[in-house]
Amino acid sequence: MEKGVTMEKLVALAKTRGFVYPGSDIYGGLANSWDYGPLGTELKRNIMNAWWQRFVTGRGDMVGIDAAVIMNPKVWEASGHVEGFTDPLVECKKCHERFRADQIDIAKACAKCGGKDGFTDPKNFNLLFKTFIGSTEDTKSVAYLRGELAQAMFVDFPQVLMSSRKRVPFGIAQQGKCYRNEITPGNFIFRTREFNLMEFEYFVHESEWEKWFEYWLEQMKSWLDFCGVNKEHLVFHEIEDGERAHYSKRTIDIEYLYPFGQKELYGLAYRTDFDLKRHMEVSGADLRYTDPKTNEKYLPHVIEPTFGIDRTVLITLLEAYTEEQAPTSEEGQTDTRVVLKLPKALAPFKIAILPLSKKDELAAMAQPLADRLRSRFATDYDETQSIGKRYRRQDEIGTPYCVTVDFETLNDKAVTIRDRDTMEQVRVAIDELETWFAQKL
Amino acid sequence: MEKGVTMEKLVALAKTRGFVYPGSDIYGGLANSWDYGPLGTELKRNIMNAWWQRFVTGRGDMVGIDAAVIMNPKVWEASGHVEGFTDPLVECKKCHERFRADQIDIAKACAKCGGKDGFTDPKNFNLLFKTFIGSTEDTKSVAYLRGELAQAMFVDFPQVLMSSRKRVPFGIAQQGKCYRNEITPGNFIFRTREFNLMEFEYFVHESEWEKWFEYWLEQMKSWLDFCGVNKEHLVFHEIEDGERAHYSKRTIDIEYLYPFGQKELYGLAYRTDFDLKRHMEVSGADLRYTDPKTNEKYLPHVIEPTFGIDRTVLITLLEAYTEEQAPTSEEGQTDTRVVLKLPKALAPFKIAILPLSKKDELAAMAQPLADRLRSRFATDYDETQSIGKRYRRQDEIGTPYCVTVDFETLNDKAVTIRDRDTMEQVRVAIDELETWFAQKL
Repeated sequence: MEKGVTMEKLVALAKTRGFVYPGSDIYGGLANSWDYGPLGTELKRNIMNAWWQRFVTGRGDMVGIDAAVIMNPKVWEASGHVEGFTDPLVECKKCHERFRADQIDIAKACAKCGGKDGFTDPKNFNLLFKTFIGSTEDTKSVAYLRGELAQAMFVDFPQVLMSSRKRVPFGIAQQGKCYRNEITPGNFIFRTREFNLMEFEYFVHESEWEKWFEYWLEQMKSWLDFCGVNKEHLVFHEIEDGERAHYSKRTIDIEYLYPFGQKELYGLAYRTDFDLKRHMEVSGADLRYTDPKTNEKYLPHVIEPTFGIDRTVLITLLEAYTEEQAPTSEEGQTDTRVVLKLPKALAPFKIAILPLSKKDELAAMAQPLADRLRSRFATDYDETQSIGKRYRRQDEIGTPYCVTVDFETLNDKAVTIRDRDTMEQVRVAIDELETWFAQKL
Repeated sequence: MEKGVTMEKLVALAKTRGFVYPGSDIYGGLANSWDYGPLGTELKRNIMNAWWQRFVTGRGDMVGIDAAVIMNPKVWEASGHVEGFTDPLVECKKCHERFRADQIDIAKACAKCGGKDGFTDPKNFNLLFKTFIGSTEDTKSVAYLRGELAQAMFVDFPQVLMSSRKRVPFGIAQQGKCYRNEITPGNFIFRTREFNLMEFEYFVHESEWEKWFEYWLEQMKSWLDFCGVNKEHLVFHEIEDGERAHYSKRTIDIEYLYPFGQKELYGLAYRTDFDLKRHMEVSGADLRYTDPKTNEKYLPHVIEPTFGIDRTVLITLLEAYTEEQAPTSEEGQTDTRVVLKLPKALAPFKIAILPLSKKDELAAMAQPLADRLRSRFATDYDETQSIGKRYRRQDEIGTPYCVTVDFETLNDKAVTIRDRDTMEQVRVAIDELETWFAQKL
């Protein structure tokens, strides 16, 4: 953050370059709703796929599921969400605007209308989005959009156990959308009503929970390192006794120093056997696991690492955003270049093919080259404006390598590759590009 | 389908092996709600990633977006969904059960209660799922879960155009969940209220729509071929004048011969400039494109190929499911083996590592080998039951290659690789496995 990034600059770049747009923009938007544009979509996909490879496909002790967003409402009754997943709200007695009781000073005038009539007593407001299945809108047809991913891993636990034949310790992972009807969302994609999570429930024997808690804490740190996050921007906030969720015996909130303050990023919770026990009681299904060696029959305990996807996109961009002095085309002159120093694995485009000019003979070399590389590496193609401007544009979207096709290419069948971070250039034969990039990327 | 598959067999295999489970099962399920289990999740991911590489990242004329499911309700008013996205329903006068008017014989007794009091007149029922944003449930806070992906591509069109600097012809692609409050869903994952789509809007000059319609029809066929679909199971149903959606001048429904009948799979529609024109009228935003060469300013016309993700999973499984006679371990004997002949690129696991016995010295070789291969190829590990049973289990989940680590491996540092389809076995040195699999997969 010492590199000059502000939320204003980041939001502007995200919009201009197509990372993140305001949602439903031509209709005046929808409060705190955002759409991922072409580059944001690729960045988010790269994050999600890297996470899945690291924590699911790349491991022998983890399986994935992809459950419905709308589950049987009994799930949310059993989990306590229907009753307890609430924010306390107060209402201005004059203009009837509602506020979160814990976020305003009720002794002061209303922030909306300025009225001094005071506020109503706090009333609990449920954060689950409600909808109706079928053709009638009554209590019998009420259903909820999931407020978290975790419940599906608990509800599907016996089916996963039976079909995958995994043995404790093992985990069930999921990525997907969750919905919370927050009253005060905000700060770009930091807090939105519709958001993306990736998380897993890791099932262990109770006697081993401390060991696995430490293990997953280290794995989360290692993932953040992979995302290019500076350790000094992270705060590991141990939640005190009495402040944790009722189901948790240990929780660490991983917080980040955003430009708008130190706030939550990820979470790591030891949920005990609370959820499985609760679903076993309410549903009547036997959710116990039998150890094939000892024949012990028990409810596994759960370590839960939760990763916000949108927040990962946000901090990856914040960490990557850099302003630095760089030489211009005029000798001895410099100006400020903005460069997204994204980890190569996460960059939306790995390569940009830039013909030096719009001349047909260069396009005839450059376009087939872009098509060829695209089958293995995400490759952009840009032929408009000066080469200097195009380099800067690729810097702004974090493309690690720019490949310039020039008139010499017609003779020597080689191209110039420019490195995003060092701006150094090397000449590489066209025939050797796949090998060269496979090594670098 | 001549290979013995029925829906009963497929649903049973999907459940037992962890492709697809009934959703919220321990709570008695939720009508027509399904969760993808570990193998189904990988199959669906492989389909979605292959599609994205083929139609987005692998092309120079396509970009992706990932828009919010909950958009400004004005979008759905402008698109006509709030008024016209309806099914006609009738209600039994005795038991008040509702039915789709076009799917029952109203002269007959009620299929639910057997009552003969007859039905009410048909009434239009809107298929959009309704919810409420914020803390009050009134008309001002109503919002909808998207009923299709397409509207986001139209609403975000000017932002994509500005930030990506693409030129017509080009496309905007998206993958994600859609919701339709269907009265009569059914047939496993064929029709569900919550479902996954992948589609793109390809923007062209009006004069070129026929050319691009034909082009995308061929591309859709090529994709179905990649998914292993037999051409003879497909019907290309040209929708007649007067039967198409009001916005379309040409539509082909791509239908499939499911075990439960010939029904829709994908769609290809020429939507003209209907949507952009409509959003331009209602929002007041200028959605026209200016051709940089001719300076012509116009609304692009749209070709829309739509691919159901869940249906792709379903037909991929149906096409792959095979029963055939195979030799057992007893000489001269055969029995029926079930094998999923999935395209290798789509198989959940590419490789299974099977130590011949549970002896520690074999596990000491086999487990590190599985961990090593897993970093590049999705790899299962299974050490329980006889090798014959484990082969059959891997056949049932479509794993192309089984690698057996036996006692000879300790000496010759080689393993036996068995081919799923031919059941032929070859001996390959452990050091050469990555190269061998990289060639085959």
